[in-house]
Order: sequence, then C-alpha cells, then structure tokens
Amino acid sequence: MTTAKRDTYTPETLLTVAVRVFNERGYDGTSMEHLSRAAGISKSSIYHHVTGKEELLRRAVSRALDGLFGILDEPGAGRGRAIERVEYVTRRTVEVLLAELPYVTLLLRVRGNTKAERWALERRREFDQRVADLMKAAAADGDLRADVDIRMATRLLFGMINSLVEWYRPQAAESGAGVDGEQLAETVVRLAFDGLRTSH
Amino acid sequence: MTTAKRDTYTPETLLTVAVRVFNERGYDGTSMEHLSRAAGISKSSIYHHVTGKEELLRRAVSRALDGLFGILDEPGAGRGRAIERVEYVTRRTVEVLLAELPYVTLLLRVRGNTKAERWALERRREFDQRVADLMKAAAADGDLRADVDIRMATRLLFGMINSLVEWYRPQAAESGAGVDGEQLAETVVRLAFDGLRTSH
Repeated sequence: MTTAKRDTYTPETLLTVAVRVFNERGYDGTSMEHLSRAAGISKSSIYHHVTGKEELLRRAVSRALDGLFGILDEPGAGRGRAIERVEYVTRRTVEVLLAELPYVTLLLRVRGNTKAERWALERRREFDQRVADLMKAAAADGDLRADVDIRMATRLLFGMINSLVEWYRPQAAESGAGVDGEQLAETVVRLAFDGLRTSH
Repeated sequence: MTTAKRDTYTPETLLTVAVRVFNERGYDGTSMEHLSRAAGISKSSIYHHVTGKEELLRRAVSRALDGLFGILDEPGAGRGRAIERVEYVTRRTVEVLLAELPYVTLLLRVRGNTKAERWALERRREFDQRVADLMKAAAADGDLRADVDIRMATRLLFGMINSLVEWYRPQAAESGAGVDGEQLAETVVRLAFDGLRTSH
C-alpha cells in the first residue's frame, strides 16, 4: 500500500526525485506513474508543478549545462596562455561534474529520442566544442605535444572525465574511505597534461 | 512478415548476432524471442546450438576476457621494469578492446543481475586488479609521480580506455575518415604516461 504524502514539493525538490528516477530507469523508461510513486504524490500533483517529464528533463540538464558553461565565463578560462586555460577548464569541469553529479550523469546518458534530449545533446556538443577549440589553440601555441592527434586526445580527456559518473561515489569521500573532489580534479589534470611517469 | 531463414548458424556466428542484440537492448532487456527474430531462426533452432541466453553471454564475455587476460601472458607484460610493463599492457588493452569491440562493450555493460553476469564482473575486476598491481609496482620503483594517488590514477586510466566503447567507431577508421587503432593505443599511452604538455 502506498501512503500518499502531502504534496510539500517545490519544482526544485521534485527535480531531485525525478533525476534520481531518470538515472535509475533511464529517461525513456520513466513514466509519470514511476515519478508519482517515487515522489509519493499523485500524478495531478506533479502536473501542478511542471508540464510533464520533458520539463523535468529540461530543468535537470539545464542545471548541469549552466554549471559547465559557467566555467567558460570564469576569469581562469579567459586569460593567460591557452594551455593554462585548458588546464583550468579541465579542473573545473571535474569539480562541476562532482558537485552536480546526478545532473551531469543524466546529461551524459541522454540518448536523443525526444526534442528535449536532442537539445541537451546539442548543448553538450557545444561545450565539448568550446573545450576542443581551446585544445587546438594550445596546440597552435606549441604547448601540446605534436605527436598526438588533438581531436583524439580531447575525446580521451572527456572520456576520462566523464567516466567519473560511473565510478565516483561521493558517500565514500564523506566517510573518509574514498576520494576528495579537489584531489580528484588535480589528479585528472596532472595525469592528462603532465603524465604519470616521473622520468620523461 | 518474417521470412524464416534456414538455420545455417554455428554457435560462433549465432554469437555475433546475440552480442549485437545484447548491446542494443541490454542483456536484461533481451529475450529469446528478440534473439530468434534478429537471427531469423526459431527459438528451438537456437536451443539446438546453445542452452539459452546465459550461455551466449558467457561465451561472449569469455571472448573479451580471454583477449584481455591473454595480454598478461605476453612477454611484454612479464619482463622489464614495471613501468614498461604497465605501458605495454595499457597499449595492448586498447588494441584488444578495439579488435573485440562488441565483446568488450558487452563485458563493460554487464550489470550483475544473474550468475553469468556476476561471474563476468568478478573476472573483469580480477583483470583490473592485475593492472592495478602493476601500477603499484611501478610506483614502488619510483617511476610514477608521487603526488598522485595511484588507485585513483588507475581508475582514471581505465575510465579513459573504457570510454572508447562509447565513441570509437571502426567504420570511420576503415573509410579513412576516422582514427586508426594502433595510433589510438599510442595516444592513450602518451597521454596517460607522458602527458599532453610539451613543457613540463
């Protein structure tokens, strides 16, 4: 038996529940019925807050995208040599990913079956492109090694960063058993730009 | 209308079809009915070759695992300094992943809901552990930077390598538009161990 909760949700708190369900079941596999059960309120109560699951998706991925695009407006992303800016953006991308973990996870899992999903994919590609442009500028400055393909290296860098949504568990960090976000961001930057070897 | 194909499958060729369907629908989401439709033969014809979808999963992930564990028995993985062995294993892991792309993709997506899946996860962890041990040995030799956490770096390295199943498309390489596997393996090794920066 489901005990109906009184609807004390705001669009914000409802979003938290929706993102969790989207990440568990996949956006495509989530119905309004699933959302209603997870939130413990009726479907019509949900419709009181939002127009439907598409709006919840839009709000959720917007939160991830606003975080990511916000990085590009920070001073560290705009001044200095391109290589310094690339390292800055890399570090901050990891930090934003960890700070907005469920939202970025959803963004990275979006498949493009609906208009809202395609819009999210398009914006995500735009962000990737901005970083790729910075990488190219750093290569043109002679600050990135000439013997690697920069497009390939950019994809591998994003592959490494994005893999965090699969294995990073914030609970572990809080309990002291896991890793800390700042340290993780620094490790990504050191690995990608300086390499793991001591003897070059 | 489905035109029934004459059953000219062997367990091997049936596996190719099954792995494609598993990767498209997820292993959990694939029924014998889906496999029968994709192969164009009846379910009883499939049962003539294999005991069920669990056996197909076992055969498929075994192919990926045999490829990966095979690397550890190669001379390059067994002799020389640990750092050289780690770089060798990293390069070969990328090569095996690309050569056995659908099989490794399936291995990486397995979730652990059934006995065969849990066995696959267990074996995969065993492989990761063997590489992690090599990384630790390289760190003990003083050949890996002391200012990064080696466990974290190992996870990031695997994150980068495993991301290939999400974005690498072999067709593009064949048409000349994309990237070549050997070059990709070399790029992963250079990025991870030497870093992308020219000026350290």
